[in-house]
Amino acid sequence: MRMYDLIEKKKNGNPLSTEEIRWMIDGYTREAIPDYQMAAMLMAVCFCGMNARETYDLTLSMRDSGEIMDLSNIDGVKVDKHSTGGVGDKTTLILAPLVASLGVPVAKMSGRGLGHTGGTIDKLECFPGFRTELSMEEFSRNVNRIKIAIAGQTAALAPADKKLYALRDVTATVSQISLIASSIMSKKLACGSDAVVLDVKTGNGAFMKQEAKAVLLAKEMVKIGRTAGKKMAAIVTDMSQPLGNMVGNSLEVIEAIEALKGNGPKDLMDDVYALGQYMLTLSGYAANTDEAKEKLKNAIGTGKALDKLAELVEAQGGDRAFVYDPSKLAVAKKKLAVTAKENGYISGMDTQDIGTACMILGGGRETKQSVIDLSVGIEFKKKTNSPVRRGDTLAYLYFNDEKKGAQAKAIIEQAYHYSADMPEKTNTIRAVITE
Amino acid sequence: MRMYDLIEKKKNGNPLSTEEIRWMIDGYTREAIPDYQMAAMLMAVCFCGMNARETYDLTLSMRDSGEIMDLSNIDGVKVDKHSTGGVGDKTTLILAPLVASLGVPVAKMSGRGLGHTGGTIDKLECFPGFRTELSMEEFSRNVNRIKIAIAGQTAALAPADKKLYALRDVTATVSQISLIASSIMSKKLACGSDAVVLDVKTGNGAFMKQEAKAVLLAKEMVKIGRTAGKKMAAIVTDMSQPLGNMVGNSLEVIEAIEALKGNGPKDLMDDVYALGQYMLTLSGYAANTDEAKEKLKNAIGTGKALDKLAELVEAQGGDRAFVYDPSKLAVAKKKLAVTAKENGYISGMDTQDIGTACMILGGGRETKQSVIDLSVGIEFKKKTNSPVRRGDTLAYLYFNDEKKGAQAKAIIEQAYHYSADMPEKTNTIRAVITE
Repeated sequence: MRMYDLIEKKKNGNPLSTEEIRWMIDGYTREAIPDYQMAAMLMAVCFCGMNARETYDLTLSMRDSGEIMDLSNIDGVKVDKHSTGGVGDKTTLILAPLVASLGVPVAKMSGRGLGHTGGTIDKLECFPGFRTELSMEEFSRNVNRIKIAIAGQTAALAPADKKLYALRDVTATVSQISLIASSIMSKKLACGSDAVVLDVKTGNGAFMKQEAKAVLLAKEMVKIGRTAGKKMAAIVTDMSQPLGNMVGNSLEVIEAIEALKGNGPKDLMDDVYALGQYMLTLSGYAANTDEAKEKLKNAIGTGKALDKLAELVEAQGGDRAFVYDPSKLAVAKKKLAVTAKENGYISGMDTQDIGTACMILGGGRETKQSVIDLSVGIEFKKKTNSPVRRGDTLAYLYFNDEKKGAQAKAIIEQAYHYSADMPEKTNTIRAVITE
Repeated sequence: MRMYDLIEKKKNGNPLSTEEIRWMIDGYTREAIPDYQMAAMLMAVCFCGMNARETYDLTLSMRDSGEIMDLSNIDGVKVDKHSTGGVGDKTTLILAPLVASLGVPVAKMSGRGLGHTGGTIDKLECFPGFRTELSMEEFSRNVNRIKIAIAGQTAALAPADKKLYALRDVTATVSQISLIASSIMSKKLACGSDAVVLDVKTGNGAFMKQEAKAVLLAKEMVKIGRTAGKKMAAIVTDMSQPLGNMVGNSLEVIEAIEALKGNGPKDLMDDVYALGQYMLTLSGYAANTDEAKEKLKNAIGTGKALDKLAELVEAQGGDRAFVYDPSKLAVAKKKLAVTAKENGYISGMDTQDIGTACMILGGGRETKQSVIDLSVGIEFKKKTNSPVRRGDTLAYLYFNDEKKGAQAKAIIEQAYHYSADMPEKTNTIRAVITE
């Protein structure tokens, strides 16, 4: 087999065989196939696409390029959750302890933030002492004992995807649905859960700006997971404004704790309940979504969910006292208000720019090597549809560097759009894919 | 400027600006832009194409990546000729001395053979002692003194094209018209002639299998040359069977000498006269193509053209006696006949396979590093349209290695196709582009 022939085949619009895809991914992982040939292949895929069988083969080949986690010594139906990433998305911090508190085993691998989006692992490290590098043994033991463990994704999972993603990132070949779907699902399948619930973000703060494309991606991923024998569901949710009112690591942990105490903002809770419902029904812990929602609300109301977060923090080396007194979490002391420039309604927010503003404050990574400041961020007082009067506080910035604060302020000011009339309200949950 | 943005721009179907193309080719030549980004760009160009302005900019950027030959100290209108390559194409060996003998200055840079196609430089080296590496000074002096010099193309000409071609060759991005046209024309423009006549081959032994694509390529190259201020003409010629009756280096030199003595086969001479006519009219040495053809025939008839070849050989270190007694040229001693398997007519020949058979005998290069055997080759007794009877000799193989001879014989046997009825005759000259 020659990579040249495979490139030519795909360029001519023909599907690659299962054997060809396996050979290609294996060769690329072993560096027998050079980046320049793979770059040509990726661009040909952008133009010619891949059919469902090819996408599935690509996913499995990438999954098999590294370690596959064996969760068989964890009891019960293990359920995982994945978000395609957005601004202010702290749902895992809420959902994981919430469903674990109902007895569902949550064996979760999470990532770090990059660019304008945040990551669960960074947020968990706001708890001093919290360890995200767990041995496989400790990971399993914790899930069996307290139903929950959250660890950083090891480099040993799907190394082919890591290499391929890095190449896509520099060759303008990221935004192809089969490539995105196989990239996400190769890692999810390598993580070994029995059920996966996907949160595909759409809107101006998401990778998938167009809702129709987000729905296609969600369907593609559900199909891949099912073919691989997993229980699957996906929701497509709005990311045309930040999720919840807090953006920034410590601030988001504080908001998550408030949510677990029953004080979560509506858009965030809509997302949490929608995902949680499918996590419970897919894993068999609820007969239907109504029953599931009831259980979820109850776990919050009784304080069981918050207690589960405290157990998680303690089990992984942190101090549970922080969970019950979030004012212990480090938040930057410098504070600046962004005020409304017009009277009327907020008609929209440039969400990706808001993520970038948080990154500029030091709360996000420009490159994988960047060191981040967990204490900075933005607290929103007004979001899309809010009525405002000139001079009203729209948001507060929390920062440690005056110059960065001023830069971020200018971006946030520009990120708000106004209208004289009340804009039409839209739902956070845009679509549900269960079939 | 970022290469990422240029890839994205081209991928979205937008033309690159003159400045962007210059920046990209300059960066790629200096290795500031990596192969993998250029590979993605090349594949995007395969799908989205380049307009005439982009193609011209690409050509000039590649021309300017290295030395540009200054032929200003050579008197008269310098004329160059280029073939896109085929099997049995020895036209330069005939044409160059032929038009030089009529006073047209021929300052020719030529290449070596690769794969199934041969190269003029290899053929000239059949004359023992012939030097193809000439200093610029000697090159100019020879053209001024005897109107002809043929040298190997130096690596200093259009290095960007060399680098880009090597990448296209391994990423299945060779066959895009703008990329082919700019590659050929960047070198032709760097060679510094005033007029260029192009021979674009089409058919199963050519890179451009489809005639319509060959015509498009010819037009594209003529347009580029004209825009750069050169006098241009192109012919599209048949390569669905070998040109002439000899394939292999020494054998082709022998056939070229016979052609200069007036004994050339019709298809070869049709090609030679068509190209020669435009070389004379473009350079102003003939008022029209009829007058040009008359002059060309006369130069052959009087022996002036053959004498010019002898002068060339002597001027570059060879022995002129070989020109007048080609039996001195080394031809392999082992000889094998390929015979007809059917009665009827030869309906077609797999020309690329014939080129490959010659390569297998040792007469061509599998890679640029291969060492070739100038003495081997194939002599055709029957070509397309020939009536044959079972057992007739179709061709003779000349070789030095029994095993290779047997391999080549099997290929040549398979390369002949038969029909009961006489196939329709077609012209060697398929199209002429002078506008």
